[in-house]
Amino acid sequence: MIDRRWPRAYSIASARYEPRRGIVPKLKPEEVENRRQEIIEAARRCFLRSGFHQTTTDEICHEAAITPGGLYHYFDSKEEIISAVIEDAARSAVKLLTSMTESAGDARSAFREVASFFSQIMQDPNIDSETRFDIETWAETLRNEKLATITQKSWALRRQWLQSLISRGIDEGMYRRDVDPRAFADLLLAILVGLRVGRLLWRGDFDLEGAINSLFLMHAGRLTNGGTDLGLPQGEAWAGDAAKARKSA
Amino acid sequence: MIDRRWPRAYSIASARYEPRRGIVPKLKPEEVENRRQEIIEAARRCFLRSGFHQTTTDEICHEAAITPGGLYHYFDSKEEIISAVIEDAARSAVKLLTSMTESAGDARSAFREVASFFSQIMQDPNIDSETRFDIETWAETLRNEKLATITQKSWALRRQWLQSLISRGIDEGMYRRDVDPRAFADLLLAILVGLRVGRLLWRGDFDLEGAINSLFLMHAGRLTNGGTDLGLPQGEAWAGDAAKARKSA
Repeated sequence: MIDRRWPRAYSIASARYEPRRGIVPKLKPEEVENRRQEIIEAARRCFLRSGFHQTTTDEICHEAAITPGGLYHYFDSKEEIISAVIEDAARSAVKLLTSMTESAGDARSAFREVASFFSQIMQDPNIDSETRFDIETWAETLRNEKLATITQKSWALRRQWLQSLISRGIDEGMYRRDVDPRAFADLLLAILVGLRVGRLLWRGDFDLEGAINSLFLMHAGRLTNGGTDLGLPQGEAWAGDAAKARKSA
Repeated sequence: MIDRRWPRAYSIASARYEPRRGIVPKLKPEEVENRRQEIIEAARRCFLRSGFHQTTTDEICHEAAITPGGLYHYFDSKEEIISAVIEDAARSAVKLLTSMTESAGDARSAFREVASFFSQIMQDPNIDSETRFDIETWAETLRNEKLATITQKSWALRRQWLQSLISRGIDEGMYRRDVDPRAFADLLLAILVGLRVGRLLWRGDFDLEGAINSLFLMHAGRLTNGGTDLGLPQGEAWAGDAAKARKSA
């Protein structure tokens, strides 16, 4: 369970994402925002290093070089810091990916950039700490509705970015017209999650490099010798209908 | 953390997976095995209903209609019951899938059976309880080495089954010769995990049906208009080399 040692007297629900400027009178608004961002980054380092449950507020204060009293001006519970860390990770990822793909000349080179980046980060040993933090967060979201909503929103942010990249790929003729960008984005994010879980939990028994290569083969349609329609019970028309229903809604 | 209320005096490490026949003199070996299986199934129902941490040994005893004293004859800790539940789930799944695919005339119809089964269970609301239990188990494996090993083995069991099915698909010409059955099996299991996590955590925001349909489209090579090699940094030859290295090892 989340550490609730911080007294509820500090809770100011209406000011949750607003730094309390009245209480920190000497800082300008942008300085408050910068300090808040520094604390989020310090907290993230603590969570990745020590884990979700083991990280104490003392550790965060030490890492951010702030007193507990100072910390209260920005966040009134550990839950709020965790939420901010999750939201910030999604925003940073999308910002980085957007800058990466916006500069690409066409959808194909944008996808190539993203695929290469994805392949690199998946093979970086540091990703295991992030997956570890994610799994601990997921377990916590199962009993914490607020955290569940934040987690859901943070994935929606990534999905929206991926969805628009896929739409661009359809417009430029890279993907076929009957590809549903929303559904395909969901699939790719799910695959990313699955590969990270496999890497962390199945360890040496999981051929990560081979799995990524299989994914690229499958994506390029170079897996089968044709005639391998697995005959979805609902048939192809059904997914098209779902996409149409969403578009007309 | 795992409930360790059961006294360690009951621990008989060398007899972990052997029912203690001397202590249950009135039951024949096959009766002991049946009773053990009943307890595992009762415990599984409890874990799926109440969650990993909330399930008490009292609840398991009640569900299995056994006294705590009786339970000690079969398992000496909650950790041991959890391990048995995880192992049993993998064995049952592989047994079911094997019987499903062995009766299929060829690899294509075997894959069609499995795909249809997979599509059905993914859309069954009960799968969320299983994913919930899995996520709680994963979080626990991060600090419990024994449970980590059991989890890893249970996935290896599934992977071995899938790997031999893919090998059959290669032999029968369904998949191309350069597909690495081990790596592709790892990928498919990771995708299964990711879809389940997406379904549970991203809720209404996750288009599960669409994502499954996209997977089938991608598998059949009907996603792109060709020329979409994403140019893996390592190139194709590299994965082939990895497969060869494994085969010759």
